[in-house]
Amino acid sequence: MPGNSFGSLFRITTFGESHGPAIGCVIDGCPPNIDLDLTAVQRWLTRRRPGQSKLVTPRDEKDHVQALSGLDEETGKTLGTPICLVVHNTDQRSSSYGDWHHIYRPSHADYGYDARYGIRAWQGGGRSSARETIGRVAAGALAEQILHQQFPKLRICAWVHQVHDHSIPEEAAETAVYTREQADAHPTRCPHPETATAIETAILAAKSSGDSLGGIIRLAIHGFPAGYGDPVFDKLEALLAQAMLSIPACKGFDVGSGFGGACAMNGISHNDPFQWQDGELKTTSNRSGGIQGGISNGMPITCTMAFKPTATVLVPQDSADDQGNNVTLQAKGRHDPCVLPRAVPIVEAMAALVLCDALMKRSGQNI
Amino acid sequence: MPGNSFGSLFRITTFGESHGPAIGCVIDGCPPNIDLDLTAVQRWLTRRRPGQSKLVTPRDEKDHVQALSGLDEETGKTLGTPICLVVHNTDQRSSSYGDWHHIYRPSHADYGYDARYGIRAWQGGGRSSARETIGRVAAGALAEQILHQQFPKLRICAWVHQVHDHSIPEEAAETAVYTREQADAHPTRCPHPETATAIETAILAAKSSGDSLGGIIRLAIHGFPAGYGDPVFDKLEALLAQAMLSIPACKGFDVGSGFGGACAMNGISHNDPFQWQDGELKTTSNRSGGIQGGISNGMPITCTMAFKPTATVLVPQDSADDQGNNVTLQAKGRHDPCVLPRAVPIVEAMAALVLCDALMKRSGQNI
Amino acid sequence: MPGNSFGSLFRITTFGESHGPAIGCVIDGCPPNIDLDLTAVQRWLTRRRPGQSKLVTPRDEKDHVQALSGLDEETGKTLGTPICLVVHNTDQRSSSYGDWHHIYRPSHADYGYDARYGIRAWQGGGRSSARETIGRVAAGALAEQILHQQFPKLRICAWVHQVHDHSIPEEAAETAVYTREQADAHPTRCPHPETATAIETAILAAKSSGDSLGGIIRLAIHGFPAGYGDPVFDKLEALLAQAMLSIPACKGFDVGSGFGGACAMNGISHNDPFQWQDGELKTTSNRSGGIQGGISNGMPITCTMAFKPTATVLVPQDSADDQGNNVTLQAKGRHDPCVLPRAVPIVEAMAALVLCDALMKRSGQNI
Amino acid sequence: MPGNSFGSLFRITTFGESHGPAIGCVIDGCPPNIDLDLTAVQRWLTRRRPGQSKLVTPRDEKDHVQALSGLDEETGKTLGTPICLVVHNTDQRSSSYGDWHHIYRPSHADYGYDARYGIRAWQGGGRSSARETIGRVAAGALAEQILHQQFPKLRICAWVHQVHDHSIPEEAAETAVYTREQADAHPTRCPHPETATAIETAILAAKSSGDSLGGIIRLAIHGFPAGYGDPVFDKLEALLAQAMLSIPACKGFDVGSGFGGACAMNGISHNDPFQWQDGELKTTSNRSGGIQGGISNGMPITCTMAFKPTATVLVPQDSADDQGNNVTLQAKGRHDPCVLPRAVPIVEAMAALVLCDALMKRSGQNI
Repeated sequence: MPGNSFGSLFRITTFGESHGPAIGCVIDGCPPNIDLDLTAVQRWLTRRRPGQSKLVTPRDEKDHVQALSGLDEETGKTLGTPICLVVHNTDQRSSSYGDWHHIYRPSHADYGYDARYGIRAWQGGGRSSARETIGRVAAGALAEQILHQQFPKLRICAWVHQVHDHSIPEEAAETAVYTREQADAHPTRCPHPETATAIETAILAAKSSGDSLGGIIRLAIHGFPAGYGDPVFDKLEALLAQAMLSIPACKGFDVGSGFGGACAMNGISHNDPFQWQDGELKTTSNRSGGIQGGISNGMPITCTMAFKPTATVLVPQDSADDQGNNVTLQAKGRHDPCVLPRAVPIVEAMAALVLCDALMKRSGQNI
Repeated sequence: MPGNSFGSLFRITTFGESHGPAIGCVIDGCPPNIDLDLTAVQRWLTRRRPGQSKLVTPRDEKDHVQALSGLDEETGKTLGTPICLVVHNTDQRSSSYGDWHHIYRPSHADYGYDARYGIRAWQGGGRSSARETIGRVAAGALAEQILHQQFPKLRICAWVHQVHDHSIPEEAAETAVYTREQADAHPTRCPHPETATAIETAILAAKSSGDSLGGIIRLAIHGFPAGYGDPVFDKLEALLAQAMLSIPACKGFDVGSGFGGACAMNGISHNDPFQWQDGELKTTSNRSGGIQGGISNGMPITCTMAFKPTATVLVPQDSADDQGNNVTLQAKGRHDPCVLPRAVPIVEAMAALVLCDALMKRSGQNI
Repeated sequence: MPGNSFGSLFRITTFGESHGPAIGCVIDGCPPNIDLDLTAVQRWLTRRRPGQSKLVTPRDEKDHVQALSGLDEETGKTLGTPICLVVHNTDQRSSSYGDWHHIYRPSHADYGYDARYGIRAWQGGGRSSARETIGRVAAGALAEQILHQQFPKLRICAWVHQVHDHSIPEEAAETAVYTREQADAHPTRCPHPETATAIETAILAAKSSGDSLGGIIRLAIHGFPAGYGDPVFDKLEALLAQAMLSIPACKGFDVGSGFGGACAMNGISHNDPFQWQDGELKTTSNRSGGIQGGISNGMPITCTMAFKPTATVLVPQDSADDQGNNVTLQAKGRHDPCVLPRAVPIVEAMAALVLCDALMKRSGQNI
Repeated sequence: MPGNSFGSLFRITTFGESHGPAIGCVIDGCPPNIDLDLTAVQRWLTRRRPGQSKLVTPRDEKDHVQALSGLDEETGKTLGTPICLVVHNTDQRSSSYGDWHHIYRPSHADYGYDARYGIRAWQGGGRSSARETIGRVAAGALAEQILHQQFPKLRICAWVHQVHDHSIPEEAAETAVYTREQADAHPTRCPHPETATAIETAILAAKSSGDSLGGIIRLAIHGFPAGYGDPVFDKLEALLAQAMLSIPACKGFDVGSGFGGACAMNGISHNDPFQWQDGELKTTSNRSGGIQGGISNGMPITCTMAFKPTATVLVPQDSADDQGNNVTLQAKGRHDPCVLPRAVPIVEAMAALVLCDALMKRSGQNI
């Protein structure tokens, strides 16, 4: 299969280049009779959109979403047929990329696309641009609506845990259960006020020096019941890993105790004891991160994702062109000093897509 | 799709429970006219098999592989038709699991499978057992043969970098290019002799106290050319992440500079400068880990995987049964104090499956 | 997988309801660097569009196609990324369907959709309308361009062989090799002038009495080489059968000698003798219809498709509503007395999609 | 995707050559907790096996089926994990094919496979042999068990309607509802005694003269409810068409009124009027063949399939070899004068696979 689709039963295909006419997605397999709340979809897109604060790229896109198909025109309910959602690009400014036409920007996708396809939509990165994620976020917003209908207590929440060396202190991180509202309350999407302030200062300093910063996003999913996920290759953590690593700039993923647990604990201390509590089976610790054998166990699903510093920096860099010359590149144009605040809704959207598909796959097999 | 298949064009489906009659896989889409070296496949399986050293589970399986289809009976060449490879189980001893029938073992897949399917092949973990990976390793060995035919300089090498808190020193780790022979030279599969010795001691200590240890495996792929991988959801790193997280006990994945680069570097220092060297385009650093925009750039592909301490430990543990009772579980039977040495060929096999599929998908699109 | 996608490597997903804002498709996996001739795509759509002659539905749609993604903005070349093609609906007139809201029209999809989804886009048939095929025709036009690049002598030609009891005489049918120009020369798309005249008269008579007619379309593909198609479930004839039966109103398919050969011939006379002719392997007859064992053998691929009389007829009919009442339905509105002339380019498009995918799948496996 | 898999959620992959060690299939996605009746699976295989009567090939295979995975060893219930079913070949006699090594047998798959793969398992036809269908029949028998659990009144029945020019008279064919027992009562699997006798005589005459015969199989499915099937490319009739045309020797398919209705009726007479009868919605005729808009409407699903005369005939035939020579081929070995009696259970199996997948896909989407 070509690589622009995700999911088996709730299956999305995204399309669009950052400097073409439009960006969008087709959602095939959506359950029928869902009251699609397009304003909620728009709200997610607005959380993702550029220009939302001084911390992110100033490209000014309203990212207004439009549905071309799949909805009943009177009631807005889903018909069970493919839903095409489109956002038209309005602030492309491709001229600002003009000088780079033949240069491979360091740590960008330029050279890879050229080697893969022998051609590239060089302006703004084409499909490798963060604008591609618009389709995912729109689809994820719909997936979350479907999940909420089945699991009203479900809460999918991602937040910025760390930027560069500023992170939420471990003692706070271990016990806190953050909400989307808390994360959204600060433009950094870090829900710990002191850390948020430090991060904001660091991002603004990087911005003013043409530099960029990376960091860590955490994801916690509460209220997702036990028994979802397909073992072996489609383990819930394996699909979450694919989903997260498919986000531009994401370089690492772990689940539950992750890298730390692997190196700091032994089996006796790492295992999560089961315990019946008021008729519900729980574990008294959650180093499994809510997933065992690839299947949810009803405990919170917890993941951590690393995002690298943005590749576009506004200082002279050594690079090469596609004619065999080594050159110095001085990037101009818009610059996103830190992608993490805007990556938060993308992480949540990808998680919603994985869970919605798991829900539907279980429903398809356990007839 | 159900979750037991991996790959698009080089597509494998694994089957078999750890205590059923057999374990195996069907490989659909294999290129025709490949001289399949079944002894090489067997060699990989032998690297993975239990009982290979005192460091791993003593279950004694020869894991003799047999081809049921897809090969020319005279020449052994692949026909382009499905190849079914089977290993019969011989040392099941399901009686040793008898007492656990109704108990959910901590941090095992028991409860997940029960919640997902309402039934479980409880003996030995069924599909969640490491024996499931036999099919992958056999298929991966074939995938590597195909890759070598196209890219004779390709070297896929994984090794144990760390067990618990014993790791290869960073100054050695940064510059060393290890070979499969070096990793296989020690039963720990750690190619750094001092570290290997420390790890061996730690594993034996854990074994004697009924405990288990986790750690880190590193993977480096040299000689894979630029231009492979499908952007967006099937980015090379996204499929590698899915592949690795689908291995039992794997809890984390990162690529290139990974978690460390995200938190310790800024964009100016993190970017990999391009440079033409003798007509070949290289980068002078490799924090991208050989992948940019989801596509290989010709530099070594480098990944790191975390494996948790094995869940089976031979001490009394708090747990619960499927009847609502909290119980104490005293596990008996065979015990694998550390999965990492045997996980090395599984990691290499999954990598080979991802790369072989990427090779074929590119060939299918770039006609 | 949900049912709105077709193809493995050249994979299309169509979307849109006949009375929604737009109809379109996303093509994922298109080879890069193809000079996409959008005017050729438009020409195919114009051959399919309603209102093209007095023989077809008078719904007046220009069916102007627009590309939202996947093309280089300067050169128009394909980028290898998803191509989204959209046609906006302009002449919906959903009010003319207003009375039917609760009635299941005989031999339409109304009841099926209601039973399947519990909701239906009742106006104009939603996804079951012939307008859904716009996306296929646009994608098929692109597929044909790709095929021509590889196989310059390829000719895919469908034509109306029979409407009701008026058919091209067998002696003409057996030897004639028709061209697309010949088929398009008459509004019936029957390339045999006498038969075309008789068919035109019959369709106009049916139209004036509010009735409709069915018939037979034939397809012949010349210049497609041997060795394409995947055996077993994806035999070339099996995918062609799926492709054709997926066209609205198509009720039958056969290949080569088909139903006639099965009942009128014995094996000795039915077999196609092989013969080397000037260094090329041919068969001296072609009852196999160019496909043996699911794989092309280099001879012309020949198929026959049955299309039923259109379900919309303008006379009172016995029917039922969704409230348990038996009713009499008097259909009003636009009426297509015979779908066959417009189905010709749809048949050709579906054939092109099957062949293009077969080309790419072979290229992917035979590396 | 390679071509050896069928189905989305109830997904089978078949493997095995007619002269290799074994034939089989892996069923992935089977619902858990099904009491798999392996003796019923064996009964289906016995209906399909060669050597069952003097009318079919004398190759003597018991076709004993064995389950390698996916079943609980105590209860025999399905685990929800992949089920691998295997039949070992015992009567290969590949020596009898020895002379043909370089000859392309007329109307066989030999040349196609050579052109596709550059290699072929020439003995007995490899994957193009009817033995490949063993895996489908075994999987179809399981699919029928699942369907019966949901729809106890479901009856899937195929029968031989015609061989060469001997067919069940139309007046009998139109009203009769045949059962599997009636079809199986005669070795021809024609349930109309006079026609069965005539067919038997014709097959024996063809056999004695080294010739072969084709004909028509009909399929009727009663008791399958309305609302199953996925519109557009996965219409129920489109997947049935693919399923049937994927059977070796099948050359044609139609549904409901099919070719006859397309050419002999007009819309007014062809439409099926809806009528409420005792609270159930029926149609008073069934020219739609139980499917409208790709979705079942609760009426019997009726299809017709054409099977060509077997390609192996025992007379001298003009042919060619792979060295550029025109030759005369005198086939020896076993000879199946008419495949239709044995194709009946294959047709039923493919129908069961399509319906079981439709059941599961609806269950997955309509959560």
